[in-house]
Amino acid sequence: MRNRRSVEQMLMELKQRLREISDLNAAADVLSWDQATYMPKGGADARGRQRAMLSRLAHERSVAPTLGRLIDALAHHGESLTYDSDDASLIRVAHREYQKKVKVPPDHVARAVAHSSASYDAWTRARPANDFAAMVSYLERTLDLSREYSSYFAPYNNVADPHIDDADEGMTTASTRKLFGELKRQLVPMVRAICAQPATDDSSLRQSFAKAAQFDFALHVVESLGYDLKRGRLDLTHHPFCTRFSGGDVRITTRVNENDLGDAVFSALHEAGHGVYEQGISAALDGSPLGRGVSAGVHESQSRLWENLVGRSRGFWEHFYPLLRRTFVQQLSSVPLTTFHRAINKVAQSLIRTDADEVTYNLHIMISRLNCSRANCA
Amino acid sequence: MRNRRSVEQMLMELKQRLREISDLNAAADVLSWDQATYMPKGGADARGRQRAMLSRLAHERSVAPTLGRLIDALAHHGESLTYDSDDASLIRVAHREYQKKVKVPPDHVARAVAHSSASYDAWTRARPANDFAAMVSYLERTLDLSREYSSYFAPYNNVADPHIDDADEGMTTASTRKLFGELKRQLVPMVRAICAQPATDDSSLRQSFAKAAQFDFALHVVESLGYDLKRGRLDLTHHPFCTRFSGGDVRITTRVNENDLGDAVFSALHEAGHGVYEQGISAALDGSPLGRGVSAGVHESQSRLWENLVGRSRGFWEHFYPLLRRTFVQQLSSVPLTTFHRAINKVAQSLIRTDADEVTYNLHIMISRLNCSRANCA
Repeated sequence: MRNRRSVEQMLMELKQRLREISDLNAAADVLSWDQATYMPKGGADARGRQRAMLSRLAHERSVAPTLGRLIDALAHHGESLTYDSDDASLIRVAHREYQKKVKVPPDHVARAVAHSSASYDAWTRARPANDFAAMVSYLERTLDLSREYSSYFAPYNNVADPHIDDADEGMTTASTRKLFGELKRQLVPMVRAICAQPATDDSSLRQSFAKAAQFDFALHVVESLGYDLKRGRLDLTHHPFCTRFSGGDVRITTRVNENDLGDAVFSALHEAGHGVYEQGISAALDGSPLGRGVSAGVHESQSRLWENLVGRSRGFWEHFYPLLRRTFVQQLSSVPLTTFHRAINKVAQSLIRTDADEVTYNLHIMISRLNCSRANCA
Repeated sequence: MRNRRSVEQMLMELKQRLREISDLNAAADVLSWDQATYMPKGGADARGRQRAMLSRLAHERSVAPTLGRLIDALAHHGESLTYDSDDASLIRVAHREYQKKVKVPPDHVARAVAHSSASYDAWTRARPANDFAAMVSYLERTLDLSREYSSYFAPYNNVADPHIDDADEGMTTASTRKLFGELKRQLVPMVRAICAQPATDDSSLRQSFAKAAQFDFALHVVESLGYDLKRGRLDLTHHPFCTRFSGGDVRITTRVNENDLGDAVFSALHEAGHGVYEQGISAALDGSPLGRGVSAGVHESQSRLWENLVGRSRGFWEHFYPLLRRTFVQQLSSVPLTTFHRAINKVAQSLIRTDADEVTYNLHIMISRLNCSRANCA
């Protein structure tokens, strides 16, 4: 009886400690969201310092020896429970994360976050001017910091492996190369065959579309597919993302291009895919390592499911195109649904990731799902 | 030489420690700003917990024995410097704040912040319904927590004294009562005499004014008077406030009432008064206890200077009324400047603080300035 209570007390203490770490990370994420949406330029220096401090504090708590001992003391209890139960999964995931984080010195974390904040600020200034030269030194430092991070996990087969494992547990450069190699063999001929045909005419998307109306339409679409605005919101940013501060506050962002009708709505759909996934996680897991998306792969499977499989389908636009047409009467009244549907599915080669790697991602996800060991991974 | 270096090192360590405390408080303030502007309803519970945690961490650092010893070790050096120099003032103010904060247990701080967050959330729901009953238990708890806070400073002459001293160092219930008593003797007959006259007609302000146009006009006005939008921004909230995250990021808020033309612009002017004061503080003091407004009294002197002495003056509206009229042609074309000027200066008795106590505030500030001991108080 006494031993039983002791396990319960330890579990409660573990959850409390993990919740504090989650809250510190969430606070750092609020500061990042703000920096990417509303922060005035003048706030960048202090914001970098403030984010770095919160990340350092979260990291210090993540590697506290007391936490390590608590996790070790609970290992036996965890193994006695059903593998997929919440508590067994929590102890297992907490153990894995502790073992990883304890290898990274706190000052590396603070330097990496401060650099990320400074780079972001520089990038928002360099992007409008397309000024790559201004970013070179930042990118070099990013690479240095990434190599330094990997060095804490030596030995490894490839310097990228520790990073890939963070994003998708169990994946490596070798397994990713194998996967992408197989896909390439089939995809490259497909893309070539399509590009040998006359290009799809997507000029209907390249007219002038009022930004506010595009934003409102995108908001309507994501709300329609189930993204809950009582527990989230859509804002404008430079490069769209989804961020979670708690189960009751999962935010998405998009950008609006006056001359590209696809940008706002497909970015919003993509992020809403991430958002509904996060909003769908059980409230009982909130504030724990189980209370968030399980991997980059599963996350991307959700975002791209909504963006591409649903959002670029004929049926989707049979429903939404009439509203889009009423919103942009002048631009779309002479554009039939079929023309629009072909335009949003145009395939073209480019230097940045396009729909072609959506397939890559989704297959990647199927495989990482097979490897997946968390309770909330279903 | 060795001793001299040691003092410099200690000063550097003091500044570093105070900057960390300032950064933690700033992070908590970002979370509060977000809660008061953009946070979805669903975020309230976790946000309260997150704000409470940051405030507790800031408090823990504010009362760290190492910090106390550092301040004590620097006391002699501080006294050897010119009284008004930055370093002497920093050591003196750090000492005073340490002595105060060390009396308050960290768990009180966490409970008070969590309660403030929960109350704010309840208030945003109760306000539209004018549901006072829903707020009673929150207000009672606020009172309990305020009494508890004062108890850490016992003995005192009046339970409110520790709170008044926090807002305006050196002021007490007794000195405030004396001041207000003198003002009342002169103000009450003035207000009665004005209210005995026929009421000023302010119906010109009570028409319907598009909210977005009101907001844009208020933004133009505050920018014109020197509030720097590269280091700040104006947003909507329930109850307007000004908040500082760093010298490069001082934000103000306002609210817009479709049927009251005065609400948005005078709230914005008031907050811009706070804002330009904060934006005007030397960047060298940023992140230290000297790098923010010196007292509630001095702060209110600035906000009310701009809101009332400047913002309700004839000359101000000789400049801005033409633009306001062009903005609301239909509503104001037949309203002469004199009618408008009288309307915005209407005196009426009410249960909430009005322009009458502006005079109180400004006199109060003159007195607290005489008591003021900080370098940045000029």
